[in-house]
Amino acid sequence: MIIVADNLRITQPAISRAVEALDPATIRQMAVACRDAGADAIDINSGPLSRDPERKMTFLVKAVQEAVDLPLVLDTTNPAAMSAGLTACRHPAVINGVSLEPEKLARILPLAAQSNAGLIGYLLRPDGHVPPDDAGRMEAAVALFNECHAAGIQSERLIIDPIVAPLVWQDGHRQNMALLKVIRALPELLGYPVKSIAGLSNLTTGAPDADTRRRFQCAFLPMLAAAGATMVLMNVLDKRLMDLARDCEKLAAETIFTWQ
Amino acid sequence: MIIVADNLRITQPAISRAVEALDPATIRQMAVACRDAGADAIDINSGPLSRDPERKMTFLVKAVQEAVDLPLVLDTTNPAAMSAGLTACRHPAVINGVSLEPEKLARILPLAAQSNAGLIGYLLRPDGHVPPDDAGRMEAAVALFNECHAAGIQSERLIIDPIVAPLVWQDGHRQNMALLKVIRALPELLGYPVKSIAGLSNLTTGAPDADTRRRFQCAFLPMLAAAGATMVLMNVLDKRLMDLARDCEKLAAETIFTWQ
Repeated sequence: MIIVADNLRITQPAISRAVEALDPATIRQMAVACRDAGADAIDINSGPLSRDPERKMTFLVKAVQEAVDLPLVLDTTNPAAMSAGLTACRHPAVINGVSLEPEKLARILPLAAQSNAGLIGYLLRPDGHVPPDDAGRMEAAVALFNECHAAGIQSERLIIDPIVAPLVWQDGHRQNMALLKVIRALPELLGYPVKSIAGLSNLTTGAPDADTRRRFQCAFLPMLAAAGATMVLMNVLDKRLMDLARDCEKLAAETIFTWQ
Repeated sequence: MIIVADNLRITQPAISRAVEALDPATIRQMAVACRDAGADAIDINSGPLSRDPERKMTFLVKAVQEAVDLPLVLDTTNPAAMSAGLTACRHPAVINGVSLEPEKLARILPLAAQSNAGLIGYLLRPDGHVPPDDAGRMEAAVALFNECHAAGIQSERLIIDPIVAPLVWQDGHRQNMALLKVIRALPELLGYPVKSIAGLSNLTTGAPDADTRRRFQCAFLPMLAAAGATMVLMNVLDKRLMDLARDCEKLAAETIFTWQ
């Protein structure tokens, strides 16, 4: 299970200020903290970057790469920022991401086709809504697979994100049980070892406090691991959650088990 | 998910002494502690009780029933103890358990047939060994189902125990991943909502310390919940594990989700 840090996000005031000021110190510090916590990769969640997208994403990628040598996930809806970020990345990056929404397909898919980056594909309907059931998620997965194929993107570059539902959503927990089923079913559905990713922090959006957040994340993370999620996007600075992720890996991995 | 306390076991010296002395105080105390911790049922693990089996099991059941009003799981390989325990139980009990071993079938199945108790059926081969793969576990489940049917035991009374493998076993963790698959597959395999039980404490037999035990149990419990295990036999006196069990239930249940 590849652990991707979701801690570098522009919604955090310190990160936002550092991006505005093009001051790399805070960004570097966060990247180092994520690496030291054991992250396998870092998601750079820059938001849409409506002003100066190329410059800001290039700054972000460079600042992180000055501090750590980890693979990067570029998390923006802005194609200009995405393109600049891909150019700045030292290692093959992951594009986060595309969906069946026509605008996303038109703007993001060509960037993936022109690069050797991984591509996260969200299981959303073309209207941008979450499918109401497993069948809808499966249909979206097949359609994304076909879109990638048509665009010349190798299937092993596609990383399916079945969208973790916040528990505050009506039926959120039921949707998440369906999501586990989808993750398990993908390899048989598409006929190859399909990669998948799940955003754990989404689960507890709107939770009343930090302890509640952690409790439900700790309950759901092992379920994702057992379902075979390839990657988990999560708060790597929560040590208990990180230790749990590694323990889950040991239980679910094909490698030899050791207690430590 | 029904949480069955595995804390009342004769391998604990205080319990063993209380059984020898037929002194109910310690037994009552443990039963109350399990109920107060939130157990839904209590497993009375009396061991084989080679001397005075009827008297000792009757004593145990009565002592527990004097203290709490929970359903009981009678956990002994001794048919005389089992028979006496079933007679002493106020509520329908669960027999723990039977397997395809000819002696077990011959001695335990008739007790189940004559009572209205639930019956835990271990997925073991007739020679008493754990099957080496999923297919072996599935075969054992079908064979147990057929044995129950032939003995006139209604299928809804059968509770399949696919046997949690200690992680210290060679390939223990792989066997436990296969076990999750078996729990998920049982309803389709047998064509009805098959009940299942898993003994969580088994996972960490031989773990180096209490913290390691808890860590791996906390990682595996949500996997069992997501697979749809009906019952979990576990240490209910570990509050973190119990809180986790309830959180897992909320995630996996069909009921309305609430944070608290």
